[in-house]
Amino acid sequence: MDALVPFAAREPKTRLATVLEPDERVEFARTMLRDVCSAIDATDASPTVLSTDPIDSEWPVVVDDRPLTAAVNDRLDPPVAVVMADLALATPDALSRLFGAEGEVVIAPGLGGGTNALVVREPDFHTDYHGASVADHRRIASEVGVEATAVDSFRLAVDIDEPEDLAELLLHGSGESVEWLRSAGFELSTPDGRVTVRRQAR
Amino acid sequence: MDALVPFAAREPKTRLATVLEPDERVEFARTMLRDVCSAIDATDASPTVLSTDPIDSEWPVVVDDRPLTAAVNDRLDPPVAVVMADLALATPDALSRLFGAEGEVVIAPGLGGGTNALVVREPDFHTDYHGASVADHRRIASEVGVEATAVDSFRLAVDIDEPEDLAELLLHGSGESVEWLRSAGFELSTPDGRVTVRRQAR
Repeated sequence: MDALVPFAAREPKTRLATVLEPDERVEFARTMLRDVCSAIDATDASPTVLSTDPIDSEWPVVVDDRPLTAAVNDRLDPPVAVVMADLALATPDALSRLFGAEGEVVIAPGLGGGTNALVVREPDFHTDYHGASVADHRRIASEVGVEATAVDSFRLAVDIDEPEDLAELLLHGSGESVEWLRSAGFELSTPDGRVTVRRQAR
Repeated sequence: MDALVPFAAREPKTRLATVLEPDERVEFARTMLRDVCSAIDATDASPTVLSTDPIDSEWPVVVDDRPLTAAVNDRLDPPVAVVMADLALATPDALSRLFGAEGEVVIAPGLGGGTNALVVREPDFHTDYHGASVADHRRIASEVGVEATAVDSFRLAVDIDEPEDLAELLLHGSGESVEWLRSAGFELSTPDGRVTVRRQAR
């Protein structure tokens, strides 16, 4: 099965701007993309990067600068998976559970109502990534006569968007991204018993 | 297998104080406790509520008003599970994956470094719920000569502590707790494309 990995190459990860410089955000985003593609590559599926701009990659890259939903829907040729490029906690095991799950539309929900990963086997299904997309994707599946099912995975539920997500990566990550973060000086901190991250000066 | 369900009966869920009155927090916390115990009861395990104060329950209740770690450690008689009382998204399927996972110490990590649920089969293991307990539990397991393993579950990773967690419950819940929330006037809201909750006046 093909797995599309949408990637916003321009000014990625703006919500990490409080803790990472622009060039660092580019580097970190590409490192996460490599982790995600490597994890997919270790399953039965094959990653294709769906990028807003040309990028160097050891995996096939398709460029489409339209918004996410339009770019994905144009290539939603079942059976196909869509896996977000910032799922830096994704492992081959977690992805294999998703890819192997039965169902015409299988969703890996993200925190906050997102659709972090998806398997589509129903040709009439289309995506809509705006807002609480998990609810929209259930509705769209229902409209085309199938029931969306879910795969229950913490590793696929956490996308790395905000500084607090970096704590999850430091706690549970095992790929290049967590190495990159540690090299950049990030470490866990529990100042008031709650886990966050701090950055050491280099 | 016995499954301890620690429950703080006094002033529960203080971090929901911005959206729920004190008597509502008591009612909501007990509703979540019932959902968790029901879900456990639908597996091969049997719930025992480990409460700081006497409460009415259809499941056995043991009262211990000491802090969480001390109260749990005193009853950590393997094989035993410990499942937090605010895992309102927990389903029998998710819990069965935890209870059936191989390993001397199996952790269901919570967001933010917590240990939301645990299976202990190693008699020398003890808990320490302070701070980033998932890291402490890995270390303690290692000190007693075993490797802690993890079960990868979104449903077990989300504990209902903060107002934003209520959105997860509205999106993914199926028990009494989500019915209670809806009856109390809560609904999803996506004012700026990000999912949160709002409460309608009754």
